[in-house]
Amino acid sequence: MNIRIAICGYGNLGRGVELAANSAPDIEPVAVVTRRPPEAIQPLTALPVLPFSDIDRLRDRVDVLILCGGSATDLPHQTPALADRFNIVNSFDTHPAIPSHFETVDRIATASGFLSLISAGWDPGLFSVARVLFDALLPAGNTATFWGRGVSQGHSDALRRIPGILDAREYTVPIPGAMEAAEAGQVQNMASTATHRRECYVVPEDGADRAALLRAIRDLPDYFRGYETSVTFLSREELARDHAGLPHGGRVIRSGTTGNASRHLLRLEARLDSNPEFTGGVLVACARAVWRMHQRGRVGCVTLPEVAPVDLSPLPPEEIRKRLV
Amino acid sequence: MNIRIAICGYGNLGRGVELAANSAPDIEPVAVVTRRPPEAIQPLTALPVLPFSDIDRLRDRVDVLILCGGSATDLPHQTPALADRFNIVNSFDTHPAIPSHFETVDRIATASGFLSLISAGWDPGLFSVARVLFDALLPAGNTATFWGRGVSQGHSDALRRIPGILDAREYTVPIPGAMEAAEAGQVQNMASTATHRRECYVVPEDGADRAALLRAIRDLPDYFRGYETSVTFLSREELARDHAGLPHGGRVIRSGTTGNASRHLLRLEARLDSNPEFTGGVLVACARAVWRMHQRGRVGCVTLPEVAPVDLSPLPPEEIRKRLV
Repeated sequence: MNIRIAICGYGNLGRGVELAANSAPDIEPVAVVTRRPPEAIQPLTALPVLPFSDIDRLRDRVDVLILCGGSATDLPHQTPALADRFNIVNSFDTHPAIPSHFETVDRIATASGFLSLISAGWDPGLFSVARVLFDALLPAGNTATFWGRGVSQGHSDALRRIPGILDAREYTVPIPGAMEAAEAGQVQNMASTATHRRECYVVPEDGADRAALLRAIRDLPDYFRGYETSVTFLSREELARDHAGLPHGGRVIRSGTTGNASRHLLRLEARLDSNPEFTGGVLVACARAVWRMHQRGRVGCVTLPEVAPVDLSPLPPEEIRKRLV
Repeated sequence: MNIRIAICGYGNLGRGVELAANSAPDIEPVAVVTRRPPEAIQPLTALPVLPFSDIDRLRDRVDVLILCGGSATDLPHQTPALADRFNIVNSFDTHPAIPSHFETVDRIATASGFLSLISAGWDPGLFSVARVLFDALLPAGNTATFWGRGVSQGHSDALRRIPGILDAREYTVPIPGAMEAAEAGQVQNMASTATHRRECYVVPEDGADRAALLRAIRDLPDYFRGYETSVTFLSREELARDHAGLPHGGRVIRSGTTGNASRHLLRLEARLDSNPEFTGGVLVACARAVWRMHQRGRVGCVTLPEVAPVDLSPLPPEEIRKRLV
């Protein structure tokens, strides 16, 4: 029997989920749910589109909701609001807020007997799994995470909110010397300002004061202040031509020791042409795991390191043992 | 309460387990078990040494047995013989025989109510987890595994069995062009003779016919025939001086696509100064997971991809969510 999912939110990530769900052998997408006028949405496949206000019509018709909204305002509200009557997967990626989001969702889902998997994707998500595994298997050591070179949606949005900027794209870029230091075990609590630089491509308004924009960008706290930040002004056409993709990636590096002096290095790397398409695939695999775990009686909230990897796979256990173990 | 383990077999791997267990906060090594005369064994720490014939004295005194014997003859017999009355971790690494070993152990452990985790280590083990995760998260693609540069114990043993060879060490070395092909998604069912070469360091008997040894090595089926194989003759002293370590490592590479043309690369890499010390750490983390899963009622046989990564970690779930997710 197929696992029935609904896609809640139909931006880049929602389309990525739709693509992944359509090529999965055991997943059946049932509907797209949107806060926009449903007629404004044209799914890639012939999925019905429901307004968010009708979401309860899906209660007996889907096994797992995949929430594809943003972490800033959508997911922190939608997830607790729906966790009492749906199994859920979300990609909540505000790292410092994960513990409190977890507790909120866990309380609601535990009380109602449903299961939510939060913070799925590549980081948090696949990279969380790597950090937990590496830390458990090589306990004496240091872990560092590097992101990029890739487009940060949050930083691009921050640029676009600066008055005088029409459109923008930000790339987060790891500093090579810092990666080498991490591989040599020398990065310990290094500030991210020392491990990453920021590349901004900015379309200014006609007649904007570019020097003032430059200062405004470089001074933006949390986003650019303290970072090595480059800014390139360009036209709308150039931005569309050269920066249309949403590539991303990164690596988790653990350097550690055993015994007296044996050194070991573990490294996971992802290079992704399309962040939303890859993330969509992760969310679909997570929906499979959520459904299986819920069927076995698991309720409450989990993150990806709490999931046995086999539960993410459509393959039967015998085939996994034969081909992949 | 600590998890009590016994170390069965006290070679390089047994010592690696002992080292790892002694630095784990929640693991209590109780005894070493050996088939040698117990007085011939001197553990690094002050552990009692029992003969294998007395293993049943440990039945109420240990939570998990860690079997540190070899995959060729020890583990296929010891594991089924003990799985009816102990929780077990082993590092059985003969890939093609994993399914049948699994079935044998699963039948016995299920009937008796104990749990065995087989094929733990880095490959199989950590690399199995990577292969299952990568395959599940990026379903359209190809996975290739490369080993080395590192010492293969099995190939070194095979060299030593050739008449006229006093001692030897073999390094398995990935062929760089093949790794690049894998990263470009071009390795699909490529034979390992095309992806790895073999470097042999051989101590010949005095007066041995080196040309004949060279032919015997290069012609050895399963081990060297078909591989690009280099042989360096050297003295016992040179072997001891330059090849005393047991480094190893490798990488799992998955190259795949989503949507129409988005390409993605996932890669896990391990570089290990000491294969037995790192593997010892993996087995200790697996003992922790086995004990927890057994406490929750899990019986039978599992491999590492069937284990939720958090179960391998000594950290409390809240700390994992705060620091590692």
